[in-house]
Parts: sequence; C-alpha cells; structure tokens
Amino acid sequence: MGAGAGFEALSCPTPAPAGDAILLGHGSGGKMSAELLQRLLLPALCNPVLDRLEDQAMVEAGGARLAFTTDSFVVKPLFFPGGDIGTLAVNGTVNDLAMGGAKPLFLSLALILEEGLPLEPLRRVMASVRAAADAAGVSVVTGDTKVVERGSGDGIFVNTSGIGLAAEGVELSAAYARPGDRVLLSGTIGDHGIAILSQREGLEFGGAMASDTAALYPLVEAMLRTRAAIRCLRDPTRGGVASSLNEIAARSGVGIELDESAIPVHDAVRGACEMLGLDPLYVANEGKLLAIVGREDAAALLAAMRAQRLGLEARMIGTVTGAHPGMVTMRTALGTSRIVDMLAGDQLPRIC
Amino acid sequence: MGAGAGFEALSCPTPAPAGDAILLGHGSGGKMSAELLQRLLLPALCNPVLDRLEDQAMVEAGGARLAFTTDSFVVKPLFFPGGDIGTLAVNGTVNDLAMGGAKPLFLSLALILEEGLPLEPLRRVMASVRAAADAAGVSVVTGDTKVVERGSGDGIFVNTSGIGLAAEGVELSAAYARPGDRVLLSGTIGDHGIAILSQREGLEFGGAMASDTAALYPLVEAMLRTRAAIRCLRDPTRGGVASSLNEIAARSGVGIELDESAIPVHDAVRGACEMLGLDPLYVANEGKLLAIVGREDAAALLAAMRAQRLGLEARMIGTVTGAHPGMVTMRTALGTSRIVDMLAGDQLPRIC
Repeated sequence: MGAGAGFEALSCPTPAPAGDAILLGHGSGGKMSAELLQRLLLPALCNPVLDRLEDQAMVEAGGARLAFTTDSFVVKPLFFPGGDIGTLAVNGTVNDLAMGGAKPLFLSLALILEEGLPLEPLRRVMASVRAAADAAGVSVVTGDTKVVERGSGDGIFVNTSGIGLAAEGVELSAAYARPGDRVLLSGTIGDHGIAILSQREGLEFGGAMASDTAALYPLVEAMLRTRAAIRCLRDPTRGGVASSLNEIAARSGVGIELDESAIPVHDAVRGACEMLGLDPLYVANEGKLLAIVGREDAAALLAAMRAQRLGLEARMIGTVTGAHPGMVTMRTALGTSRIVDMLAGDQLPRIC
Repeated sequence: MGAGAGFEALSCPTPAPAGDAILLGHGSGGKMSAELLQRLLLPALCNPVLDRLEDQAMVEAGGARLAFTTDSFVVKPLFFPGGDIGTLAVNGTVNDLAMGGAKPLFLSLALILEEGLPLEPLRRVMASVRAAADAAGVSVVTGDTKVVERGSGDGIFVNTSGIGLAAEGVELSAAYARPGDRVLLSGTIGDHGIAILSQREGLEFGGAMASDTAALYPLVEAMLRTRAAIRCLRDPTRGGVASSLNEIAARSGVGIELDESAIPVHDAVRGACEMLGLDPLYVANEGKLLAIVGREDAAALLAAMRAQRLGLEARMIGTVTGAHPGMVTMRTALGTSRIVDMLAGDQLPRIC
C-alpha cells in the first residue's frame, strides 16, 4: 500500500466511539484516511508487526526475512495514458516492497468483476499485468476471481499482494529521519494524478500527459549498492509528496524544509494544476520515490540515482531539521515560507 | 482461494477468441469459472509456479519454503448465522494455506468500502477479523483501504492474502490421487451455503442453521502428524464437494466413486436443499476438508480426524478407482449409480 494509505501508517490508538459513515475522503491517503485507521482499523488489528508502521510488513518465516504488502486498485477509468489498472496493480505492489529495500519476488492477483463486463477490457488488463510483472521480474503465482451483480461493483477491481526478499543489513523506516539529513526525490511529481484526471474528465491541458507508473526496484537496488546511509524510502502515491513527508516528519519527530524551486514538475502538469486549483505536492505519483539520507552521503546517492533511467531527473529537494518537529515547511520561489500540511479531505478520488 | 475457483485450478491453455461478457456464473467455482480461467486468465499469466495448479502457490524465498494464497470476499449479506465477511476472510485464506499442509503465519487485509457505509458494521467486521485471526494463530501484518462512490461497490469487499510455512517433507497435490486411495470428508456438507441463502432470502427451514466457517489448520496438523500417505487436501468451498472431487479426478486421471449414504448432511440442510431443488454436493462449505489418502492409512487417518474437534463427524465417503478416469460417480441410497458432474453455471452467487 502507498504512503499514508496503509494500516501501518500510524501508531496504535485507542478505539473511538461509533459514529458517521464512510466518505470518499477516507480513501484519499490524507487526514481522513489516517483518522479511519486511528479510530477504527488499528484498534481492532494492532499487533507487533503492524506496529512497525511501514508501507510493507517485514516478517520472518522459515529463517527468511520477507517483505509482505497488499493493495487494492479501483482506479477510474480502467485505461489511461501510460498504463491501466493492471500496470498499476503490479507496479504499486512491487514498489511498496521496494520501499522496504526488498527485492519483489511473487505476486497474488485477485479480481472482483462486475456482471456484464465485456471480456475484451479484462483481456487487455491481464496482458498489462503480465507485461508489468515481466518488466518487474516478478511472477503472479496465485489468484482468485469473484463476480458481483451489475451495479454492485464497477467493472474491474484488482487486488495484488506481494512477497519480497529483504536486503541483508538494510532497515528503513519513516521513524529514522534525523536533523541534517537530506530529502531526495527521484523525478517529476503529479504526473499520475493529472493523467488520470485529464482522462476521466476529458480535459486537455495543451501537453501530452501520461502516468509515471513504473516498477522502482532497479532504482532502489542501485541506491542500496552505494551503501549510503539511507534512512527511509517512500513512494508518494495517494496524498502525494506532501502527505508522505508529513508522515516521516511525524514519525521521526523532525521538521522537513522543502525548496520549492528544486521540485521538478512538468510544465503540462503545472499548468493543469493551476487551472484546476490543485497543488502538485498533493497529487499522486506511481513511479517516483522519496529518500531520506544522511547529509554526508546525499551527493553520492543523488549521483547514483541520476545514473538510473528511473532517476534521471532526481533532485535534492529539502533538509531535515530539528526545528518544528512533525511539520513540513517550504521556501517558495518568492522567498517566503509556508506550511505544507497533510492532504485534508478528498482531492482526487479513485486515483489508484 | 478455494477449490475450483483459483487460477491454479487448470492447466495452461491457449488463448481463445474474444467474445461475450462476464456473468455471475463466472464466479461460481464451477464450469464457467474454469472456462474463464482456461480461456482468458491463464493464457495471460501462465508460469511454472502457477502451473502447479493447487489452491495455494508453494514458493521458495530466502531458503524458506512458503505457501502463498489470495482470496477476495464479496459475500452477501455481510453478517450471517455463524460468522460474517470478516470471519470468512480470515478462515478462507488460512484454509487455503492449510490445504497445502502449510502452517498459516501472516495475513494481509485489503478493504474496498462503499461511500455511505455506516462505520458500525465495519467496526463489527474488523472485530471478527481480529477474533478469527487470533483463533487461527495468525497476525494481520499489512493492509489497505480504498473507497468507491455509492453504487460502485456493495458495502464491504475484503481481500485477504496469506503466507504459510510449508511442512517439511509434505507435498500434496490434486494430481497425486491413485486407484485404491480412499476419500475422507471431515464433517457435514452444505452448512455454509444454506446458512447464507436462508439469511439472504429470509427463509426458515425449521432448523437452526449456521455457517461452518472455521480455521482448519489444527485438524490438518493432527492429520500430518499421523504420517499417513495423504495425497491431497481440499476445502470444498464454491462449487462444493462435487466440484473439488471432479478437479481431483481430472487432475489425477482417476475415477472417484462416492457412497451417498456415507456423506453426512444435517437434517435442516437436507430439508432446505430438497425444498430449493439444490444438491448438497454442490453447496459451499467453509470449515470442511476432503482428504485423499492411501488405502492402508485410511482407517488410522480417519481415527486421527475424529479425535479432533473439527473432524468429529469425519467419514470415509468414497474410493479412487482406475475406471472412468476424470469422472466422479455416486452409489445412491437406492443402490443405483449416477454421475456427479462439476457445478454447471451459477447455483448460489456471492456465497463467499
């Protein structure tokens, strides 16, 4: 699961009284998702592995140290520039494994199909699953298919769960950031969310936009090879870069200062965001990662990232500080400073 | 995933031409599910692990031999006598691991929630997940939550995937049945399907009916401890006992002869089936298993099963033969013989 969206994203809370109902914002990966987890899901499920609170569980089985993760995909529309729900289902899950430093090995694939779905889109999605799995070097080894009545689903929902092999001696956590660390970003932000939105709403923004969906393990492998002091890796999906960094700041009890001018955004994405009143910092990415790294290793790690296809546009975008623990701030292009809060409510539903 | 319902249930086929659309019967666990797998899903996904064609994938990671499985749950209604979607989601997945002889260890839990769902049923389902996981000795270590608009889902859909540790020296397969082997059944059949149906339709059948949902690993562990020559274990879920045995007969190239009088069915279930024109052999179970075992060990294995709470009503219900390969037949209570085919079409949709 993506940053901010998973059961692991928060510490074990006490149950809250009953009330209300599920809203779209509860799936946003922002504050409302966090509240649902804190108040309802975690009180029920709390256990020592879940309490480690990362995007993937690290578990031991038969002497092997494994990463394990799950993600359901309900993206709308099913097909969009740069990929489809099948591509996304493979890449999203292998990326959650990779963010733990684990090499993705095996996937499960479970489909919930709506009665009346033509077979042709299903066939296309399965071809995408296969192609993405091959590209990511993983096998789909087990599966399941359920069918619900017309009007009880929406075409195709996909769940992928994944098993990865932990890298020896590597332990990453959103709780490990320290003042002085640097924040690296592997490339442009907002591409996925804006591609989905423009496809869904039939909007044209004067530029070709495509999802950045990609399997990030090759980049992670190259980064680990440098032996840099990497504290944490996150793929900023639902809730975007802002939500992922807020999580890290909160978990580590540090502040994070971003430099707006250093954050790469495609012109077309920037234009679309301006027209729609969206902040690219909150828009979902599906092929980018954030790394928190010790200051002394930041330059070498950045160079290693830029040597990879998936990190060509990598940038150093900020610094971890001891000031304002739990808070993310940004020096704007105008020289002012502003607070970058977690996503509140529901920016773009069904983005993944 | 349950018998007959999984991607592993059939051998690698060649793609068929496009056509048609998804029908409810494609989720039945019977012939239509098999066709969808054969014609569309397997041609896309085929690989050596998937080709082993069991209810769970057996994989190796970091030197450990693991079982891995996934199942989505769309049961309607969410709550029914004997359990709810949460109970089912835990037991269904741990049972698929147990049918490979593996000890269930870790679960993932992914929710697809419909906008407008009140929080109270979600809270109850999560409490059931926790209770069932505790009872089964597994931990939910990773999770995900998605929300879809009102009318694009149906309350709560749950996916659970699971990792289990393979038992040393144990290799079970639907392809291992041999003429002379015996067929054992751990208890009464049809309880789950009839409990769901009576709850859904508001029917009363003059008897208290409850789902048999239960985690079967303790029974499996006791069975493995006997060192009996167990060829195969299956939990006859969607498609029922008939579909599971047809799969084994086809995969092993053997015939299976059942003795109708030996198959335990609760009176209330039998009465309900008669009123509704259902055959209990095709009705789903969620806490029962079938075992194929070498003749010489059958009596000892049966005794071991009957010593367990989950196997108190275990019976020997049939024999594997060399006659009629791929076919299941049954000597009826009247002394005649009839063919027991795989479930055709769609008996009871959304049973799990």
